[in-house]
Amino acid sequence: MKRVRIVFSGSGGQGVITAAIILAEAAVIYAGKNAVQSQSYGAAARGGATRSDIIISNNDIHFPGVIQPNVLVCLTQEAYNLYSPIIRPGGTLLTDSRYVKTTRNVDARQTELPMYDTVMEQIGKPIVFNICVLGALIGSTELLRPGALIKAVADRVPKNFLELNTKAFDLGLSLAQDNL
Amino acid sequence: MKRVRIVFSGSGGQGVITAAIILAEAAVIYAGKNAVQSQSYGAAARGGATRSDIIISNNDIHFPGVIQPNVLVCLTQEAYNLYSPIIRPGGTLLTDSRYVKTTRNVDARQTELPMYDTVMEQIGKPIVFNICVLGALIGSTELLRPGALIKAVADRVPKNFLELNTKAFDLGLSLAQDNL
Repeated sequence: MKRVRIVFSGSGGQGVITAAIILAEAAVIYAGKNAVQSQSYGAAARGGATRSDIIISNNDIHFPGVIQPNVLVCLTQEAYNLYSPIIRPGGTLLTDSRYVKTTRNVDARQTELPMYDTVMEQIGKPIVFNICVLGALIGSTELLRPGALIKAVADRVPKNFLELNTKAFDLGLSLAQDNL
Repeated sequence: MKRVRIVFSGSGGQGVITAAIILAEAAVIYAGKNAVQSQSYGAAARGGATRSDIIISNNDIHFPGVIQPNVLVCLTQEAYNLYSPIIRPGGTLLTDSRYVKTTRNVDARQTELPMYDTVMEQIGKPIVFNICVLGALIGSTELLRPGALIKAVADRVPKNFLELNTKAFDLGLSLAQDNL
Protein backbone atom coordinates (compact mmCIF):
# COMPACT_ATOMS: atom_id res chain seq x y z
CA MET A 1 0.00 0.00 0.00
CA LYS A 2 1.38 3.39 -0.93
CA ARG A 3 -1.59 5.67 -0.38
CA VAL A 4 -5.26 4.86 -0.01
CA ARG A 5 -8.01 7.47 -0.12
CA ILE A 6 -11.29 6.55 1.50
CA VAL A 7 -14.63 8.36 1.65
CA PHE A 8 -17.27 7.29 4.17
CA SER A 9 -20.70 8.76 3.44
CA GLY A 10 -24.15 8.48 4.95
CA SER A 11 -26.47 10.47 7.16
CA GLY A 12 -25.96 12.09 10.54
CA GLY A 13 -26.53 9.54 13.28
CA GLN A 14 -25.10 6.56 11.39
CA GLY A 15 -21.73 7.01 13.07
CA VAL A 16 -19.87 7.86 9.88
CA ILE A 17 -17.44 10.28 11.56
CA THR A 18 -16.70 7.92 14.44
CA ALA A 19 -15.98 5.09 12.02
CA ALA A 20 -13.60 7.31 10.08
CA ILE A 21 -11.76 8.37 13.24
CA ILE A 22 -11.42 4.74 14.38
CA LEU A 23 -10.05 3.74 10.96
CA ALA A 24 -7.48 6.55 11.01
CA GLU A 25 -6.43 5.77 14.58
CA ALA A 26 -6.05 2.06 13.78
CA ALA A 27 -3.81 2.91 10.84
CA VAL A 28 -1.58 5.22 12.85
CA ILE A 29 -1.43 3.72 16.29
CA TYR A 30 -1.66 0.01 15.45
CA ALA A 31 -0.27 -0.21 11.92
CA GLY A 32 2.50 2.43 11.98
CA LYS A 33 1.12 4.47 9.07
CA ASN A 34 0.30 8.14 8.62
CA ALA A 35 -3.29 9.27 8.29
CA VAL A 36 -5.44 12.34 7.96
CA GLN A 37 -9.15 12.39 8.51
CA SER A 38 -11.50 15.25 7.77
CA GLN A 39 -15.09 16.36 7.51
CA SER A 40 -16.32 19.16 5.31
CA TYR A 41 -19.69 20.47 6.40
CA GLY A 42 -21.85 22.77 4.35
CA ALA A 43 -25.25 22.71 2.71
CA ALA A 44 -25.12 18.89 2.66
CA ALA A 45 -24.64 18.73 6.43
CA ARG A 46 -27.65 20.94 6.96
CA GLY A 47 -29.64 18.57 4.74
CA GLY A 48 -28.49 15.54 6.70
CA ALA A 49 -25.73 14.08 4.50
CA THR A 50 -22.41 13.41 6.18
CA ARG A 51 -19.11 12.69 4.50
CA SER A 52 -15.80 11.93 6.07
CA ASP A 53 -12.48 11.57 4.22
CA ILE A 54 -9.52 9.48 5.31
CA ILE A 55 -6.12 9.17 3.67
CA ILE A 56 -3.77 6.43 4.86
CA SER A 57 -0.19 6.36 3.67
CA ASN A 58 3.28 5.11 4.44
CA ASN A 59 4.54 8.61 3.72
CA ASP A 60 3.68 12.16 4.77
CA ILE A 61 0.34 13.51 3.63
CA HIS A 62 0.09 17.19 2.78
CA PHE A 63 -3.46 17.66 1.54
CA PRO A 64 -6.11 16.25 3.86
CA GLY A 65 -9.10 16.20 1.49
CA VAL A 66 -9.97 13.41 -0.92
CA ILE A 67 -10.85 14.20 -4.54
CA GLN A 68 -11.19 10.67 -5.98
CA PRO A 69 -11.44 7.88 -3.42
CA ASN A 70 -10.02 4.39 -4.01
CA VAL A 71 -12.59 3.18 -1.52
CA LEU A 72 -16.06 4.67 -1.24
CA VAL A 73 -18.58 3.64 1.40
CA CYS A 74 -22.19 4.81 0.91
CA LEU A 75 -24.76 4.20 3.63
CA THR A 76 -27.69 6.17 2.21
CA GLN A 77 -29.21 6.58 -1.24
CA GLU A 78 -28.51 10.30 -1.12
CA ALA A 79 -24.83 9.68 -0.35
CA TYR A 80 -24.64 7.12 -3.17
CA ASN A 81 -26.26 9.48 -5.68
CA LEU A 82 -23.93 12.29 -4.65
CA TYR A 83 -20.62 10.49 -4.38
CA SER A 84 -20.60 7.39 -6.60
CA PRO A 85 -19.49 9.48 -9.62
CA ILE A 86 -16.24 10.47 -7.87
CA ILE A 87 -14.86 6.97 -7.27
CA ARG A 88 -11.38 6.36 -8.66
CA PRO A 89 -11.43 3.93 -11.65
CA GLY A 90 -10.66 0.44 -10.39
CA GLY A 91 -11.66 1.32 -6.83
CA THR A 92 -14.00 -0.39 -4.39
CA LEU A 93 -17.57 0.71 -3.71
CA LEU A 94 -19.20 -0.66 -0.56
CA THR A 95 -22.92 -0.05 -0.05
CA ASP A 96 -25.53 -1.24 2.41
CA SER A 97 -28.20 -3.17 0.55
CA ARG A 98 -31.03 -1.94 2.77
CA TYR A 99 -30.28 1.74 2.36
CA VAL A 100 -28.88 1.90 -1.18
CA LYS A 101 -30.18 0.70 -4.54
CA THR A 102 -27.25 0.85 -6.93
CA THR A 103 -28.53 2.35 -10.15
CA ARG A 104 -25.52 2.89 -12.33
CA ASN A 105 -22.37 1.15 -13.44
CA VAL A 106 -19.19 2.58 -12.07
CA ASP A 107 -15.69 1.46 -13.01
CA ALA A 108 -15.19 -0.15 -9.59
CA ARG A 109 -15.69 -3.39 -7.74
CA GLN A 110 -19.19 -3.04 -6.28
CA THR A 111 -19.86 -4.76 -2.99
CA GLU A 112 -23.44 -4.62 -1.74
CA LEU A 113 -23.86 -6.17 1.69
CA PRO A 114 -26.84 -6.45 4.07
CA MET A 115 -24.90 -4.88 6.92
CA TYR A 116 -27.76 -3.06 8.61
CA ASP A 117 -30.19 -6.01 8.39
CA THR A 118 -27.57 -8.42 9.73
CA VAL A 119 -26.77 -6.16 12.68
CA MET A 120 -30.47 -5.86 13.49
CA GLU A 121 -31.08 -9.64 13.20
CA GLN A 122 -27.99 -10.80 15.06
CA ILE A 123 -27.46 -8.01 17.60
CA GLY A 124 -30.57 -5.86 17.54
CA LYS A 125 -28.71 -2.57 18.28
CA PRO A 126 -28.41 -0.10 15.42
CA ILE A 127 -25.72 1.81 17.32
CA VAL A 128 -23.05 -0.72 16.27
CA PHE A 129 -23.96 -0.53 12.58
CA ASN A 130 -20.92 1.66 11.87
CA ILE A 131 -18.57 -0.89 13.44
CA CYS A 132 -20.09 -3.64 11.28
CA VAL A 133 -19.39 -1.42 8.26
CA LEU A 134 -15.76 -1.12 9.37
CA GLY A 135 -15.56 -4.92 9.54
CA ALA A 136 -17.00 -5.22 6.04
CA LEU A 137 -14.57 -2.60 4.78
CA ILE A 138 -11.57 -4.47 6.18
CA GLY A 139 -12.96 -7.78 4.91
CA SER A 140 -13.40 -6.54 1.38
CA THR A 141 -10.27 -4.42 1.00
CA GLU A 142 -7.60 -5.82 3.34
CA LEU A 143 -6.65 -2.21 4.02
CA LEU A 144 -5.41 -3.08 7.54
CA ARG A 145 -5.29 -6.19 9.67
CA PRO A 146 -8.53 -6.83 11.58
CA GLY A 147 -6.59 -6.86 14.88
CA ALA A 148 -5.46 -3.25 14.39
CA LEU A 149 -9.08 -2.18 13.98
CA ILE A 150 -10.29 -4.12 17.00
CA LYS A 151 -7.68 -2.41 19.17
CA ALA A 152 -8.71 1.04 17.90
CA VAL A 153 -12.37 0.18 18.56
CA ALA A 154 -11.44 -0.84 22.12
CA ASP A 155 -9.76 2.56 22.65
CA ARG A 156 -12.92 4.43 21.67
CA VAL A 157 -15.85 2.51 23.14
CA PRO A 158 -16.78 2.06 26.80
CA LYS A 159 -15.50 -1.24 28.19
CA ASN A 160 -18.92 -2.78 28.74
CA PHE A 161 -19.79 -2.20 25.07
CA LEU A 162 -16.65 -3.78 23.69
CA GLU A 163 -18.12 -7.25 23.24
CA LEU A 164 -21.08 -5.85 21.32
CA ASN A 165 -18.77 -3.85 19.09
CA THR A 166 -16.42 -6.77 18.49
CA LYS A 167 -19.40 -8.92 17.50
CA ALA A 168 -20.56 -6.23 15.05
CA PHE A 169 -17.06 -5.97 13.59
CA ASP A 170 -16.84 -9.74 13.11
CA LEU A 171 -20.26 -9.83 11.46
CA GLY A 172 -19.13 -7.26 8.90
CA LEU A 173 -15.85 -9.06 8.33
CA SER A 174 -17.65 -12.36 7.68
CA LEU A 175 -20.24 -10.80 5.39
CA ALA A 176 -17.44 -9.38 3.25
CA GLN A 177 -15.31 -12.49 3.24
CA ASP A 178 -18.25 -14.73 2.32
CA ASN A 179 -18.90 -12.39 -0.57
CA LEU A 180 -15.38 -12.49 -2.05
CA MET B 1 -16.40 37.09 10.65
CA LYS B 2 -15.07 36.15 7.26
CA ARG B 3 -12.93 33.13 8.00
CA VAL B 4 -11.59 31.84 11.30
CA ARG B 5 -8.94 29.14 11.57
CA ILE B 6 -8.79 27.28 14.86
CA VAL B 7 -6.36 24.64 16.14
CA PHE B 8 -7.25 22.55 19.20
CA SER B 9 -4.28 20.68 20.64
CA GLY B 10 -3.67 18.42 23.61
CA SER B 11 -3.23 14.76 24.35
CA GLY B 12 -5.35 11.74 23.43
CA GLY B 13 -8.11 11.29 25.98
CA GLN B 14 -8.72 15.01 26.60
CA GLY B 15 -11.55 15.03 24.09
CA VAL B 16 -9.84 17.37 21.64
CA ILE B 17 -11.37 15.78 18.54
CA THR B 18 -14.87 15.66 20.00
CA ALA B 19 -14.64 19.34 20.95
CA ALA B 20 -13.55 20.20 17.41
CA ILE B 21 -16.43 18.23 15.89
CA ILE B 22 -18.96 19.91 18.19
CA LEU B 23 -17.60 23.35 17.31
CA ALA B 24 -17.82 22.62 13.58
CA GLU B 25 -21.34 21.21 13.90
CA ALA B 26 -22.48 24.23 15.94
CA ALA B 27 -21.15 26.56 13.25
CA VAL B 28 -22.86 24.71 10.41
CA ILE B 29 -26.11 23.46 11.84
CA TYR B 30 -26.92 26.26 14.31
CA ALA B 31 -25.15 29.29 12.87
CA GLY B 32 -25.55 28.75 9.11
CA LYS B 33 -21.84 28.81 8.31
CA ASN B 34 -19.54 26.46 6.43
CA ALA B 35 -16.90 24.47 8.28
CA VAL B 36 -14.24 21.84 7.78
CA GLN B 37 -12.66 19.91 10.57
CA SER B 38 -9.67 17.61 10.29
CA GLN B 39 -7.08 15.60 12.16
CA SER B 40 -3.64 14.79 10.85
CA TYR B 41 -2.08 11.86 12.65
CA GLY B 42 1.53 10.86 12.40
CA ALA B 43 4.52 10.56 14.68
CA ALA B 44 2.89 13.07 17.07
CA ALA B 45 -0.21 10.88 17.45
CA ARG B 46 1.92 7.87 18.31
CA GLY B 47 3.63 10.00 20.97
CA GLY B 48 0.31 11.07 22.47
CA ALA B 49 -0.15 14.56 21.01
CA THR B 50 -3.45 15.26 19.29
CA ARG B 51 -4.28 18.19 17.06
CA SER B 52 -7.52 19.02 15.37
CA ASP B 53 -8.05 21.85 12.88
CA ILE B 54 -11.31 23.67 12.24
CA ILE B 55 -12.04 26.36 9.68
CA ILE B 56 -15.32 28.29 9.95
CA SER B 57 -16.36 30.60 7.17
CA ASN B 58 -19.31 32.34 5.58
CA ASN B 59 -17.99 31.14 2.22
CA ASP B 60 -16.83 27.87 0.67
CA ILE B 61 -13.66 26.37 2.05
CA HIS B 62 -11.35 24.52 -0.31
CA PHE B 63 -8.36 23.57 1.79
CA PRO B 64 -9.24 21.81 5.03
CA GLY B 65 -5.92 22.15 6.89
CA VAL B 66 -4.83 25.13 8.98
CA ILE B 67 -1.37 26.65 8.53
CA GLN B 68 -1.61 29.66 10.88
CA PRO B 69 -4.53 29.61 13.32
CA ASN B 70 -6.29 32.79 14.47
CA VAL B 71 -7.28 30.83 17.54
CA LEU B 72 -5.01 28.26 19.16
CA VAL B 73 -6.03 26.11 22.12
CA CYS B 74 -3.26 24.19 23.94
CA LEU B 75 -4.16 21.72 26.66
CA THR B 76 -0.73 20.18 27.30
CA GLN B 77 2.79 21.56 27.59
CA GLU B 78 3.88 19.42 24.65
CA ALA B 79 1.11 20.86 22.48
CA TYR B 80 2.02 24.41 23.57
CA ASN B 81 5.70 23.88 22.81
CA LEU B 82 4.88 22.42 19.41
CA TYR B 83 2.16 24.77 18.20
CA SER B 84 2.51 28.18 19.88
CA PRO B 85 4.99 29.30 17.18
CA ILE B 86 2.40 28.90 14.42
CA ILE B 87 -0.23 31.26 15.80
CA ARG B 88 -1.31 34.02 13.42
CA PRO B 89 -0.10 37.48 14.59
CA GLY B 90 -2.88 39.18 16.51
CA GLY B 91 -4.61 35.88 17.24
CA THR B 92 -5.88 34.38 20.47
CA LEU B 93 -4.03 31.74 22.49
CA LEU B 94 -6.05 29.84 25.09
CA THR B 95 -4.19 27.57 27.51
CA ASP B 96 -5.11 25.62 30.60
CA SER B 97 -3.10 26.93 33.56
CA ARG B 98 -2.73 23.52 35.19
CA TYR B 99 -1.29 21.79 32.15
CA VAL B 100 0.63 24.59 30.45
CA LYS B 101 3.29 27.00 31.66
CA THR B 102 3.56 29.69 29.01
CA THR B 103 7.23 30.34 28.44
CA ARG B 104 7.48 32.69 25.52
CA ASN B 105 5.88 35.82 24.19
CA VAL B 106 3.79 35.36 21.12
CA ASP B 107 2.14 38.13 19.13
CA ALA B 108 -1.31 37.13 20.36
CA ARG B 109 -3.77 37.74 23.15
CA GLN B 110 -2.83 35.10 25.73
CA THR B 111 -5.60 33.74 27.89
CA GLU B 112 -4.58 31.32 30.62
CA LEU B 113 -7.52 29.88 32.51
CA PRO B 114 -7.79 27.25 35.26
CA MET B 115 -10.30 25.21 33.26
CA TYR B 116 -9.24 21.77 34.45
CA ASP B 117 -9.02 22.74 38.11
CA THR B 118 -12.40 24.47 38.00
CA VAL B 119 -14.07 21.44 36.40
CA MET B 120 -12.58 19.18 39.05
CA GLU B 121 -13.61 21.48 41.92
CA GLN B 122 -17.10 22.29 40.73
CA ILE B 123 -18.11 19.10 38.93
CA GLY B 124 -15.50 16.47 39.77
CA LYS B 125 -15.68 14.72 36.38
CA PRO B 126 -12.69 15.14 34.06
CA ILE B 127 -14.75 13.83 31.13
CA VAL B 128 -16.44 17.22 30.67
CA PHE B 129 -13.16 19.16 30.60
CA ASN B 130 -13.33 19.50 26.82
CA ILE B 131 -16.80 21.07 27.02
CA CYS B 132 -15.54 23.58 29.60
CA VAL B 133 -12.76 24.45 27.14
CA LEU B 134 -15.40 25.05 24.45
CA GLY B 135 -17.21 27.41 26.83
CA ALA B 136 -13.99 29.30 27.53
CA LEU B 137 -13.26 29.49 23.82
CA ILE B 138 -16.67 31.00 23.07
CA GLY B 139 -16.37 33.34 26.07
CA SER B 140 -13.00 34.68 25.00
CA THR B 141 -13.51 34.91 21.24
CA GLU B 142 -17.24 35.37 20.59
CA LEU B 143 -16.76 33.06 17.64
CA LEU B 144 -20.37 31.81 17.83
CA ARG B 145 -23.32 32.43 20.12
CA PRO B 146 -23.26 30.22 23.24
CA GLY B 147 -26.73 28.88 22.35
CA ALA B 148 -25.46 27.41 19.07
CA LEU B 149 -22.79 25.49 20.97
CA ILE B 150 -25.18 24.22 23.62
CA LYS B 151 -27.47 22.81 20.91
CA ALA B 152 -24.54 21.06 19.22
CA VAL B 153 -23.43 19.62 22.57
CA ALA B 154 -26.97 18.33 23.12
CA ASP B 155 -26.86 16.53 19.74
CA ARG B 156 -23.67 14.68 20.67
CA VAL B 157 -23.98 13.71 24.33
CA PRO B 158 -26.37 11.20 25.90
CA LYS B 159 -29.46 12.90 27.37
CA ASN B 160 -28.67 12.08 30.99
CA PHE B 161 -25.27 13.76 30.65
CA LEU B 162 -26.60 16.96 29.14
CA GLU B 163 -26.93 18.83 32.44
CA LEU B 164 -23.35 17.97 33.40
CA ASN B 165 -22.10 19.13 30.03
CA THR B 166 -24.12 22.34 30.11
CA LYS B 167 -22.70 23.11 33.56
CA ALA B 168 -19.16 22.53 32.26
CA PHE B 169 -19.82 24.79 29.28
CA ASP B 170 -21.18 27.56 31.53
CA LEU B 171 -18.16 27.28 33.83
CA GLY B 172 -15.80 27.81 30.91
CA LEU B 173 -17.89 30.69 29.57
CA SER B 174 -17.82 32.44 32.99
CA LEU B 175 -14.10 31.87 33.48
CA ALA B 176 -13.41 33.55 30.15
CA GLN B 177 -15.85 36.42 30.62
CA ASP B 178 -14.53 37.19 34.13
CA ASN B 179 -11.07 37.34 32.58
CA LEU B 180 -11.92 39.85 29.82
